[in-house]
Amino acid sequence: MNRRKFFRNGSLFTLGAVVMNPFQGSANILDLQSVNKNKKAKNIILLVSDGMSTGTLNMTDLFLNRKTGKGSNWIQLYKDNKVSRALMDTASANSIVTDSSAASSSWGGGFRVNNGVLNVSPDGKPNLPIWQKFKKAGKMAGCVTTVPITHATPAGFCVNSKSRNAQDDIAEQYLELGFDIMMGGGANYFSPKVRKDKKDMFAAFKAKGYQVVKTRSEMEAASTTKPILGVFAEDGLPYFVDRNSDESLKNTVPSLGEMAQKAIDRMKHHKSGFVLQIESGKVDWAAHGNDIAGLINDQIEFDEAVKVAIDFAEKDKETLVIITTDHGNANPGIIYGKYANDNFDSIQKYTQTNEWILNQIKPESSISQVKEIIEKANGHSVSDADAKIVLEYYGDLHKEDGLYNYKKLPYKAFAEMQGKINSVGWISMDHSADYVELAMFGPGSELLKPFVKNTDLHYIMLQAAEIENKF
Amino acid sequence: MNRRKFFRNGSLFTLGAVVMNPFQGSANILDLQSVNKNKKAKNIILLVSDGMSTGTLNMTDLFLNRKTGKGSNWIQLYKDNKVSRALMDTASANSIVTDSSAASSSWGGGFRVNNGVLNVSPDGKPNLPIWQKFKKAGKMAGCVTTVPITHATPAGFCVNSKSRNAQDDIAEQYLELGFDIMMGGGANYFSPKVRKDKKDMFAAFKAKGYQVVKTRSEMEAASTTKPILGVFAEDGLPYFVDRNSDESLKNTVPSLGEMAQKAIDRMKHHKSGFVLQIESGKVDWAAHGNDIAGLINDQIEFDEAVKVAIDFAEKDKETLVIITTDHGNANPGIIYGKYANDNFDSIQKYTQTNEWILNQIKPESSISQVKEIIEKANGHSVSDADAKIVLEYYGDLHKEDGLYNYKKLPYKAFAEMQGKINSVGWISMDHSADYVELAMFGPGSELLKPFVKNTDLHYIMLQAAEIENKF
Repeated sequence: MNRRKFFRNGSLFTLGAVVMNPFQGSANILDLQSVNKNKKAKNIILLVSDGMSTGTLNMTDLFLNRKTGKGSNWIQLYKDNKVSRALMDTASANSIVTDSSAASSSWGGGFRVNNGVLNVSPDGKPNLPIWQKFKKAGKMAGCVTTVPITHATPAGFCVNSKSRNAQDDIAEQYLELGFDIMMGGGANYFSPKVRKDKKDMFAAFKAKGYQVVKTRSEMEAASTTKPILGVFAEDGLPYFVDRNSDESLKNTVPSLGEMAQKAIDRMKHHKSGFVLQIESGKVDWAAHGNDIAGLINDQIEFDEAVKVAIDFAEKDKETLVIITTDHGNANPGIIYGKYANDNFDSIQKYTQTNEWILNQIKPESSISQVKEIIEKANGHSVSDADAKIVLEYYGDLHKEDGLYNYKKLPYKAFAEMQGKINSVGWISMDHSADYVELAMFGPGSELLKPFVKNTDLHYIMLQAAEIENKF
Repeated sequence: MNRRKFFRNGSLFTLGAVVMNPFQGSANILDLQSVNKNKKAKNIILLVSDGMSTGTLNMTDLFLNRKTGKGSNWIQLYKDNKVSRALMDTASANSIVTDSSAASSSWGGGFRVNNGVLNVSPDGKPNLPIWQKFKKAGKMAGCVTTVPITHATPAGFCVNSKSRNAQDDIAEQYLELGFDIMMGGGANYFSPKVRKDKKDMFAAFKAKGYQVVKTRSEMEAASTTKPILGVFAEDGLPYFVDRNSDESLKNTVPSLGEMAQKAIDRMKHHKSGFVLQIESGKVDWAAHGNDIAGLINDQIEFDEAVKVAIDFAEKDKETLVIITTDHGNANPGIIYGKYANDNFDSIQKYTQTNEWILNQIKPESSISQVKEIIEKANGHSVSDADAKIVLEYYGDLHKEDGLYNYKKLPYKAFAEMQGKINSVGWISMDHSADYVELAMFGPGSELLKPFVKNTDLHYIMLQAAEIENKF
């Protein structure tokens, strides 16, 4: 099958032109093309660190370098010259700043939709999600994530919905569509005790032949010959740094890398290949909370999953690995100053997220209790005055809002206080319009140009797998 | 001459390894190598948008797209697949967050130095600046900038100095070293009225055969057969948007693109080739001031200079063009919200910088005068309350500091107020540690790997020009 056949989408025509006119420009695409020539991507693994500003990628690499002497797996791929790279424009149909459902839909459906929507165009037209296309083409398909498996980013590859909030319904669509492995958090959308309709979706999945696993050891014990639903938390999974500081969580909640490995093991022997989305969803949540320990450590967890995917793909040689994010969030960065190095290194001592800290503090806590909680979690002393400022938010004097801040805790005030000690700054507690980093490894990576729109990714995935877009 | 000879610097060994082992990794370097093979870079043009966070590049492209329907020349090079790209680690010898002198010295001298220093290593060893190396190799060399020509970024390619602040001395070093064209601001460092030693450096340059030009028309009239010193302002040149809103400034002060074109015309016929640094220095100053109209419009001015350089290089075919920044600054970005599009578009109406606005306001201004000034410059109405907040900074109640804020004007307070209307946020008023964007066009661009340290650039420039590093 000839790849030229796929160039029917306007936005891909120029991409096609490069492939057809190999001497146009300096075309650094071409060597990848010669290496991967006539190699079809049998499998596709897409890794998305949700809401990862460029600064998050950079800081994590710097953090690892300074802590361990070795940077991130993601940046190592650049040092080893193993990937093609692009900047990606992440806009949605109605805004230069996307949300995660419109972002995932752009990849998943190939068209930009309004913020909050999953694969339904502004004119009401549904766009067939790409994991359904690949299922129809005979491949296995799955998703693993650290947020509810019914959340925007996995859902954007799998279903159509006028609202990303319809997570009860999204769980039912998953059941009907029969994906091969779906794992993450979100028991609230499967449990008869929490669902509005009282349906027991766990039982329904079991009845359809799924193995339903709720702990790390159950996941490890599950057979790779039958479909798997893994749900390890009511809502999102715990932050990686909080999980690692709690022996019980460490034993019961799998890491993203472990989920990724299980998903690959589940699908790798399928003769028509597989597609897998791996999402680190709480990098975004940490950015919304300006929560530096959450942000960097969840990005490290993501980076471990990058290694799992690349290790598989390097041996397999028929797997396209895509590593990216759906949008920036909060544009964090390390700020100039005499003590920037030491300040930034102080984050290495953080054993808990700000979320953990702020949930430990109670309205009735004393100043000395507040100090003790922060000192335990951040590894440095705190003044009475600072502890008092934080504690004031637990009364009626001050309150904070925020997308994932249901309890109205002082994330912003605490991060600003912390910033004086760790030199990290944030532009806001929300998404940004920045173009984002995108890397591709393996067959199909030669199709990537240095600048793409998010929707281009939909067609690149189909082309790489040589699946004609006739559905 | 064999390029392998150049791989004597440790940090370049891996780069050498890729060239020598062409089938290692997927090596997208190779096509550029085949296109540019055995082609030496006779000329090198390095364009630096000082203090350009990734968000500055992105926002300017979005701004141009939304205003004119066509994005930036820089991003267009990516869309046309004409360049190789890298992320660059910008650290200095003593900090993960560099200043501009250490940043320019890393490129200019090939070694990291402490912040504030020009090409003198922490152990006191001077490192020969690269424009001197190229002069010794027979090439012409010059710099053009929108800040004083004696400022850190041009100085880092030209001289050694224990302090970037020694601008009087740097002007004398320029005279002694005899660069072929040097243009920008900084009359304060040449004028006998302002220099501490009362020397008339303008007269000294004339005595050495330089044409000294002080206006746009004098620059245009200058012969391209003799060296040129152009100094168009006491300190930095006016911001591009302020210049364009003032007919007199527009007629007397050249744009960066015009200076770049003059510099190319001055040096392009030299048979051994030339090297040219083109700096947009006030992108950095605007970031220090969280001054969005200054930032975006000076980045647009820089982008016009990118076009000047690429237009020349495309015809010339022997010119390596490097486009980058020395470090991030303030990590600006457009923040999510219902009105993000309209808010961001409101910046199209800004006809003056915040610097202009804040200098127009005086301690004795009335509330209605303050409103009038802001409304004229930003194209929207301002409440009495907001005008009052700004005016309070002109009394003794509040003061702001900042690197280029000699008059202690309320840049931060005003930018925060403006952010509610234009949806732009900033992490600080200072440099960030972010890895930065780097692109190369033409012969030598095949040497670039997807991730480099700032010092690597020194050796890539020498290699590309096939100048052995023996000085």
